[in-house]
Amino acid sequence: MPRRATDVETRIASDDHAAIRLWLRMLATSRLIETRMRQLLQRRYATTLPRFDLMAQLERVPDGLKMGELSRRMMVTGGNVTGITDLLEREGLVERVDEPGDRRAWRVKLTRAGRHAFKAMAEEHERWITEAFAPLAAREMSSMTVQLGRLKTHVRSLEKRDI
Amino acid sequence: MPRRATDVETRIASDDHAAIRLWLRMLATSRLIETRMRQLLQRRYATTLPRFDLMAQLERVPDGLKMGELSRRMMVTGGNVTGITDLLEREGLVERVDEPGDRRAWRVKLTRAGRHAFKAMAEEHERWITEAFAPLAAREMSSMTVQLGRLKTHVRSLEKRDI
Repeated sequence: MPRRATDVETRIASDDHAAIRLWLRMLATSRLIETRMRQLLQRRYATTLPRFDLMAQLERVPDGLKMGELSRRMMVTGGNVTGITDLLEREGLVERVDEPGDRRAWRVKLTRAGRHAFKAMAEEHERWITEAFAPLAAREMSSMTVQLGRLKTHVRSLEKRDI
Repeated sequence: MPRRATDVETRIASDDHAAIRLWLRMLATSRLIETRMRQLLQRRYATTLPRFDLMAQLERVPDGLKMGELSRRMMVTGGNVTGITDLLEREGLVERVDEPGDRRAWRVKLTRAGRHAFKAMAEEHERWITEAFAPLAAREMSSMTVQLGRLKTHVRSLEKRDI
């Protein structure tokens, strides 16, 4: 059935292109938004996205995080986690606290001043993101979030298969 | 009408969170796929994503690109465009050609060997992307592509407004 074979091939080829097209657009859109967030953080708070990201990770865990956990949780790359922590510590925004029961380990946590400074930035960051995503209806945002969740789970499972 | 005011506030607040949730998921998903592509290119072709990206940009323009144009078109960051070009030139995959009418300018283009090497990698890269996006139906991919296009256009317009 040559007719049918051709149709299937056509469909497969066009699905391939659809995936590549979507991937390139997702990459370009993420970079565009990320670059905008870097610029706004720099302009309004003279801070960097890795610094903001590091404080965001700490804000979620009041007891603080060990350096390894902190590195793993970072959403953006390009920051030296130890270097950023040192700087934030010098500015009084984070502190190192001993890990109970392990003399060689410590955790990093936000200070009261750090929590205060982060709150102001986070509220404005959320406004910038809301403004950026304004063209999408609530329904579109929620279905895209669900679809990306399926994608993430699937890609993680491919990684496990590779090992 | 306190009832109504509360509803509007609640809706606004929940839209804000929807945007942040979507943004964090988009960022995480893009990074996950990008990391996977880096690993696969390294493992199968002993090459890097910036090298692949640079060749991909040249492949679209048979006459080649000036260095400035090439830098602007790169999809991924973290690569030194001049350094990568030098390496690819040494390997015979790209060449510098004089720009007619401008003695101080030249273009970079793929050599025949470069086009050949790129074609093999690009086909496999497309298979990896198709495999990664397999959980999404064609209809979902196309509507996500359209929605991300609207997002991109909007964020570009915000950037222009800032200047």
